[in-house]
Amino acid sequence: MLTVDVNLQVLLDILGVFVFALSGGLVAVRKGLDLVGVVVLAWVAGLGGGIMRDVLLGATPPVGISDWRLLASVVVAGALTFLWQRRLRSAYLGRARGRMTLLTRSVRTLDAVGLAFFAVSGSLKALDYDTGALAAVLLGVLTAVGGGALRDVLAGQVPEVLRRELYAVPALIGASVVVLADRWGHLNPVVIWGSVMLVFAIRMAAVALNLNAPTALRTTGETQ
Amino acid sequence: MLTVDVNLQVLLDILGVFVFALSGGLVAVRKGLDLVGVVVLAWVAGLGGGIMRDVLLGATPPVGISDWRLLASVVVAGALTFLWQRRLRSAYLGRARGRMTLLTRSVRTLDAVGLAFFAVSGSLKALDYDTGALAAVLLGVLTAVGGGALRDVLAGQVPEVLRRELYAVPALIGASVVVLADRWGHLNPVVIWGSVMLVFAIRMAAVALNLNAPTALRTTGETQ
Amino acid sequence: MLTVDVNLQVLLDILGVFVFALSGGLVAVRKGLDLVGVVVLAWVAGLGGGIMRDVLLGATPPVGISDWRLLASVVVAGALTFLWQRRLRSAYLGRARGRMTLLTRSVRTLDAVGLAFFAVSGSLKALDYDTGALAAVLLGVLTAVGGGALRDVLAGQVPEVLRRELYAVPALIGASVVVLADRWGHLNPVVIWGSVMLVFAIRMAAVALNLNAPTALRTTGETQ
Repeated sequence: MLTVDVNLQVLLDILGVFVFALSGGLVAVRKGLDLVGVVVLAWVAGLGGGIMRDVLLGATPPVGISDWRLLASVVVAGALTFLWQRRLRSAYLGRARGRMTLLTRSVRTLDAVGLAFFAVSGSLKALDYDTGALAAVLLGVLTAVGGGALRDVLAGQVPEVLRRELYAVPALIGASVVVLADRWGHLNPVVIWGSVMLVFAIRMAAVALNLNAPTALRTTGETQ
Repeated sequence: MLTVDVNLQVLLDILGVFVFALSGGLVAVRKGLDLVGVVVLAWVAGLGGGIMRDVLLGATPPVGISDWRLLASVVVAGALTFLWQRRLRSAYLGRARGRMTLLTRSVRTLDAVGLAFFAVSGSLKALDYDTGALAAVLLGVLTAVGGGALRDVLAGQVPEVLRRELYAVPALIGASVVVLADRWGHLNPVVIWGSVMLVFAIRMAAVALNLNAPTALRTTGETQ
Repeated sequence: MLTVDVNLQVLLDILGVFVFALSGGLVAVRKGLDLVGVVVLAWVAGLGGGIMRDVLLGATPPVGISDWRLLASVVVAGALTFLWQRRLRSAYLGRARGRMTLLTRSVRTLDAVGLAFFAVSGSLKALDYDTGALAAVLLGVLTAVGGGALRDVLAGQVPEVLRRELYAVPALIGASVVVLADRWGHLNPVVIWGSVMLVFAIRMAAVALNLNAPTALRTTGETQ
């Protein structure tokens, strides 16, 4: 069972890195950055969250700079972003608006997938390091939102995690389920994959329904 | 005496986290962010500086993700920001300009309080880890300005520490007093609280008098 | 030979810190920041990359907060920026455009020098810590581009490493040469200084020729 968990964690990590790296590459493409910018933003988005997690765990050097599988995942994602961009271009030539919208929607969906993989794999790794339940949940959330936040800061935009739609909450729920399952002795592949799908479903529902957490200034218009 | 110091450091930390978290929440409110944005910015502002300090000390996992008292302090501050916001709203309804000014001034004052607590508690913790005097002073300053800088970067504004009024200097003075007192064997609660008040007084004086450090380009107008 | 290498690494570090700190100070001057802003940006630009490297290596506390030689280097660079600024001012009084251009070009050149020193010294230090070849190369690049990226983010601009001209690539080449030379048993002062000059030459050629990595959206105009 332990072997299954460890393999699962590596698999979740690689998949999460891949889709987040795609999202980083797409943000770079949208901003008109060059090939290096695309690869750097892919690296930051794909591995930034995990590097933060490892630094906070004291697990140095972080896998984000030493594990060739994760780095290969980033490079492949960067290359695919380029190929994808060209295909998008020929498909949508002259319909710049539509392409931008599709790019935005693609970034959102990939972000949701990465969010799900990372929230779960981040808390699993923290549990391996015996950090305590609270820290394991927070490290799951940080792994999930850290790379995207760094990507957005470097690209010069306010991080998605701070903007309108529910973004950190699904990660918080997924990481909590994993940590509670561990505490109750029910951590198995079904629970793990279930948590991944739960995070993805909540996040996509939030995007689809344009669901927001309560906003402070939004309420200014009310009389009480 | 050691016990007193340790308790004092924890107390300073909790108070500093609380007021910095309030400042983070207020920045989020001013930017029109949602509840999650408020809590995330409160967490970043309240615990970011201490997390940087702990990472640089190698004290992992940082207290900012594992100590429930600090995390509770952030959550309470986030909730209070929401309550405060509503009270401000009814008090200042229709006087948006005035509310904004009051929010700005509140952020400034809370920032000064947090700056004072963190400069002192940061250097105290570094001294516990035997980092040497120079590093202890710098870690005090980093603890004090790091969370606010991270808060400002995430909110999309140039960090207050880089802007006009003297901001890092009071923290530098306070941390230096603590470290010198330690070197001279006179580190006691009176010196510690005195340092806290010293930092706050210098910072508030700088804000009140609009006191600036010398500016390079400002002097361009002079003939020599 | 080991002594030579260690001394070389310290020397490269001090020189890299100095020129990067100058670049940080110049960015601060260009943004109209005060003396504290100049020193803070000089510190961030000069020591940010090395601090990231040390944190990822687990080498805490990082030399960037504990080694007085590096810190003295930053302070001297900050002071010189101020002096330089005044000289620039009297030389270019009334020709604001020209001064800005000169400032921009100075920042670029200093950046290239720092990039060269840091790419090499960063990978050398990582090799000392036995991180493996891949991580050593990446830590060289991170040491080289990290401080400048942090400087740009704090100053509110998109990091130079993400913008048009080849910036990370020379660092990647230089760090790779160092790590390969180490693997092949040919790491000596000649190779080390040669790598430094190689990085500088490639970077300056890229700036001079306005050489860019391939850009995604740039190609939109093509028919294929």
